[in-house]
Parts: sequence; C-alpha cells; structure tokens
Amino acid sequence: MKLPTAEHHPPPATSAAADTTVGLRVPDISATADRAMDQALGHRLRPAGFPTQPFGQLEALAMQLARVQGKRAQALNQLHFDLPQVLVFAGDHGVADEGVCAFRQEVTVQRAQAILEGKAPVNALAKLHGFAVTLVDSGMATPMSELTQPLNAELPSNAPTLLLRKIGHGTRNMVLSPAMSVPQAVSAIHAGMDVVRHLPGNVLALGDVGMGNEACAALILSRLCGVPLADACGEDPDLDAAQRRHQLEKLFAAATRHRKAASALDVLATMGGYEIAMLVGAMLQAASERRVVLLDGFACAAAALVARALAPACTDYLVFAHRTPEAGHRLALLHLQAQPVLDLELRVGQGVGALMVWPVLLAAQSLLQG
Amino acid sequence: MKLPTAEHHPPPATSAAADTTVGLRVPDISATADRAMDQALGHRLRPAGFPTQPFGQLEALAMQLARVQGKRAQALNQLHFDLPQVLVFAGDHGVADEGVCAFRQEVTVQRAQAILEGKAPVNALAKLHGFAVTLVDSGMATPMSELTQPLNAELPSNAPTLLLRKIGHGTRNMVLSPAMSVPQAVSAIHAGMDVVRHLPGNVLALGDVGMGNEACAALILSRLCGVPLADACGEDPDLDAAQRRHQLEKLFAAATRHRKAASALDVLATMGGYEIAMLVGAMLQAASERRVVLLDGFACAAAALVARALAPACTDYLVFAHRTPEAGHRLALLHLQAQPVLDLELRVGQGVGALMVWPVLLAAQSLLQG
Repeated sequence: MKLPTAEHHPPPATSAAADTTVGLRVPDISATADRAMDQALGHRLRPAGFPTQPFGQLEALAMQLARVQGKRAQALNQLHFDLPQVLVFAGDHGVADEGVCAFRQEVTVQRAQAILEGKAPVNALAKLHGFAVTLVDSGMATPMSELTQPLNAELPSNAPTLLLRKIGHGTRNMVLSPAMSVPQAVSAIHAGMDVVRHLPGNVLALGDVGMGNEACAALILSRLCGVPLADACGEDPDLDAAQRRHQLEKLFAAATRHRKAASALDVLATMGGYEIAMLVGAMLQAASERRVVLLDGFACAAAALVARALAPACTDYLVFAHRTPEAGHRLALLHLQAQPVLDLELRVGQGVGALMVWPVLLAAQSLLQG
Repeated sequence: MKLPTAEHHPPPATSAAADTTVGLRVPDISATADRAMDQALGHRLRPAGFPTQPFGQLEALAMQLARVQGKRAQALNQLHFDLPQVLVFAGDHGVADEGVCAFRQEVTVQRAQAILEGKAPVNALAKLHGFAVTLVDSGMATPMSELTQPLNAELPSNAPTLLLRKIGHGTRNMVLSPAMSVPQAVSAIHAGMDVVRHLPGNVLALGDVGMGNEACAALILSRLCGVPLADACGEDPDLDAAQRRHQLEKLFAAATRHRKAASALDVLATMGGYEIAMLVGAMLQAASERRVVLLDGFACAAAALVARALAPACTDYLVFAHRTPEAGHRLALLHLQAQPVLDLELRVGQGVGALMVWPVLLAAQSLLQG
C-alpha cells in the first residue's frame, strides 16, 4: 500500500491580535531578558579555579529561573520556590475511535481515577517532592459520576483535588469534523487560565491524560512548524506496522480535512483537544503571573507551540523538563529551541516527567545560593 | 608539528588472583543477577494501560537498586536507603607540572579547603539531599597543616569530616617515573576500603578532587580498553590548541615510558593517582557490603575500570550518575557498558554529579512502592 505524500505548507504567522477577534483574552506576559542579571549570575556560576561552565546545563536553568523571579524583591542570586503545584488535565479525543492510538478512550478515565485515588505514578512523585495534585476534567468522554471520589472527610489534607471544567464529553472525531468549535477551544483556554489563577504558589508542573492526544500533538506540530506528518507522528512501539500505517492514513485524512486551519487557534480547535487547550491557557496565565512552569511530554510541547504563537514571551517561563522517546516530541523541542533537562525515556505522562525535574531546580537553587 | 601516532596494544586480561601476589586483598563481591526478582519487578514497573516501558531508564535503575538490596529481608519491591554518605578523595599528581591540565596543583588544596569549610558546590548539594560529607586527603602535595579546619567545637554536627590517609605528597611525575610504586597503589586501595568500612549507611556517593587526574584517567582508559590516547584525552576547552598538543605529547611520553604496564594494578600504579586508587578501594569495599555506589565523572569511571578488572561483579553495584562533556568519560562509559542517568554537562567534579542522581533514586524508590 502506498502512503499519501506529506504536504508542506508552512503556515502564515499568527498574531494574538488576530485571535482576539474571536473573544480570546490573552493575558499580558513580560519577556524576562535581563542582561545585567545574566552577567551577575554568570559570575557566580563560574567560580574561579573551576573549568569553563562547571555547572553545564544547570547554568542556563538557574539563569532562566532567576530571570523569571528577577522582578521580585529578593536578591538576584536567590531563588524562592513556594507551594509547588502539579496540574493534570484529562480529556478524551473522538479521533481515538479511528484506531490512531494503542489505547481506547476508557483508559483515560481509568488513569484519572487512579490519580484521584492517589494511586498513580504522579501521586508517588508529588508526595516525594511535596507537590499538591489537582486533576481537571477538561472533557473526558465518560460521565463524571463514574468517578467514585472518596468522601472528603476520609481523605488526608494532601489528597488530590478534582476540578470539573468539562467542555464536552470528548472532542469530536477530527477525521469527520473539527475536534472543537473555535468558541469551545477559547472556552477551554479560558478555563485553563482560570484554574491557574486560583492555585497558590509560584511553581506549576503541567501534565496531561488523554488517549489519542499524541495524534493531536503530531498534527499541531506538523501544521504550526511545517514538519512532515510522518516525522511528527513517529513510530509508536505499541502499534504494529499495519496499525501504524492505518494511524498515519487517518492523520493525513484529518490534516487534509483541516488544510485551511493556519492560525494557532484554528489549528488547536480543529485538531487539538480540550486538555491541550487548557494546557495552553494554564501556560499563558502562569507566565503572566511570573510562575515557573514545568512541562511534561509531547502534548505539553504541542500546547507550548500554540501558546508561543499566541504570546511569544510565554516561553521564557517554560522549563522543558524532559525528552520522551517520541519522535514528535523531540522535533517539537527543536522547534521550540528548548534544551530539555532530562532524557530518561519516560512515557508515563500525567506530569511525572515534569515532576522529575523538580530536584534539578532545587539543585540549581542551592548552587546559586551555596 | 606532527603528533606521534597512537599505539594500539590491547592488554592481556588481568585477574585478581595475579594481583594478590603483591599483597592486594580484594574483598568478596557477589554478582546480583536474580531473574525471578527482575520478572516480579518488571511486572510492577509495567502497569496495565500504560505504553511499553513507561518509566524508561528508571526501570533499569530500579531493578539494579532492587538487585543490590535483594538479599535483605525487605519485600522485593521496596528499596531502603539509609544514612547516605558522600566521600571525596583529594590527591595531587606530579604530572600536573608538565602542563597537562589547565590548573596548577595548588588548586587541589584550595578546593579541598572549600569543601572542608562547607562552601563548595558539593556541600550545597549534600545539604540539600541530606548526605554526610567526608573529605579524604589521599595525597595532596600541600602539607595538611595549611588546611585550617575550624575547631570542631564551632562546627555544626553535619560539618564535613576530614580523614588523613595521605600516601605521599602528590604522586611522582609519570613522564619521568611510575606515579606510584605498586605497594603505594596497594596501600591506597586498602585505605579506600578502610575508609568505607568505617562509614555507616547503604548509599555511597563518590567524588574526587585532583588537578591532572583527567590525564591519569585518559591513560588508564587508553591502556585498559585499547582506546587511542588522543580519543581518551579529548579536547579540554580550558586549553588552547598549542597547550592541547603539548598535553598529548606528554601523555604519549608517559604511555611510552610505561608501555609494559598491562595488569590493572600496574596501570593504576604507573599512570594513576592516590585518589583514583582510593576510589578503586572504596568501590570494592562498598560493593562487598552491598551498598549502592553513585559515581561522579571521568576519574571515577577510570577507577571503575580498574575495579572491574580486579573484581568484575563490583559493577553491579555502581550507578553511573552522569555523563560529563569530556570525550574520555563518554568512551569510558561505553566500555563499562554503562547507561548514565543524567547528561547535564557538569564539569564541577568533587561528587556533585554523583549527588545529582540521588533524587532519581528516590523517584525510582517511590515509583516502585507507589
């Protein structure tokens, strides 16, 4: 069987101004560049009697963190992390029915339930690192009543919080129609902002649960960055060769159907998902509040591409925690000009990778202050 | 100027038995392989409803840690870390006088002093992660009286401990004679064992301070693994082109002078250093006590090559914490068949890289138990 050839139509540049015509409110985000601070910190991070750049990648990370916190009252060489939060958005994707991923939509709600019960990998790491866990139902297909959250009275104070911000019961099948309407996408972005606005702290780790969202991420990467779809899609080891060919055909069909989507918001609406849109909103809001934002895998990177198109300065606040083995994630990081901190081949999702980078932040903090 | 061409003489295999003829006592070390445990843990680390190998490199790490602790009473799926220690060996190298490194021997004692005063990067990380710091004078050139350790009465209980195990005032210049006599090398290995024997806990992070020990590490790697010296030596960014050429010439001269050194112990004695020999002893002893051993950079990797030659099973206990940008370190890790956990381009030495991997161990622990 012959595969359709990839299209290469680099999209026109998008602007926040254009997107505001459909009611999207993008908060003000300041760029963090501060040459004087960089010099002061560089001096501190390159002590005499050590080789060139002794702290390697920690130097760039420490500088980024200091720039994010630079406008505050603390001394330049101090980092202050407060009440760290991990926020996991869960949503379903109609396109999962097309067999574009190895798991069925029902797995989304199973994983969400495990998080809510404190039994998921993200809970173990959140407990280890002292993060509060918030799970947001961005739009799972399964009705929430099936989520049996124990009564709050029985829960310890650090139990995960569930927020119901469901935009719909899973997105529509993007092979047949846009995944979301533009107003739905805007609502989801606003919901993501709203969730962050009500969270305390100045460090936010973001994760996602949503079977099929790698397909969305691949389509967003392909369209916004001009990456061939076959490259963005990569080779899922959980699919066999025939399934992979089928997956790619379906993604080509979706890309062809939504070939006119060019602005970041249109791409997000037609080929994204509720949890990806909320991740976009969460990043924008957190950046506008000068929080440090720790990002997990491919879906977060795709959301970062959308957020960057809406407000370029927001990338100053994003820490790309790790590189997953997914080919598309690696390409997305290149297009984001991001140097991921870890490369542990984690594929667990749900914010685990984002939490893994936390001790590296603490190390950067202690080396700056030490 | 034309550089001398590299020699390629793969050395004959060494054996611990041969080395014991010169009085070296290698402790008994058990291999940790345990197929039944691997299967039990593999099941736990590959939960249903997740992609293949969701925890990536953490899976192999968790399995290694469990195997190290496997013979204990705890349940198979529990890891127990106790009283973690970081041990930094400091020594000087006569070959530093030949201009083979960017720093002079005096820098060794300056860095050692900073560690003892609690002001060095390793202290900052040790404090962050709750490690006790022990600094061993393995053989610094500077008399120890110049180390002004504050009175113990003034120190907090977690102040670094100084141990005096000086074998000599720096090694001899290996371009002119063997760096150490074989009895000196054996004494240093025994001293390293002895230091570990008196430390509590079941996790040991190892680091080193010693201007010029990259040159020793390059020579050890070259001889024990048949790596061309120019490759083992790499390109030190702190040296200019002329200095690098000079460095390589001197290392070729040393390699030629000690061309007959073939057994691991002979290679260590002729081209190693006091702190490298003590690292060898520390690894052997820690492995014999079933401790987890976290290794820092190139000098530690070279010591691991020697330790492996003396007792192959000891590598089961070694966690190669990170990959430095040094070309020789990367090659040494390949020859050790080691997958380093982090790749942050740290060049700070003194155990900082080894400590950086500690939270990854804790994450593996919490994911296994979670």
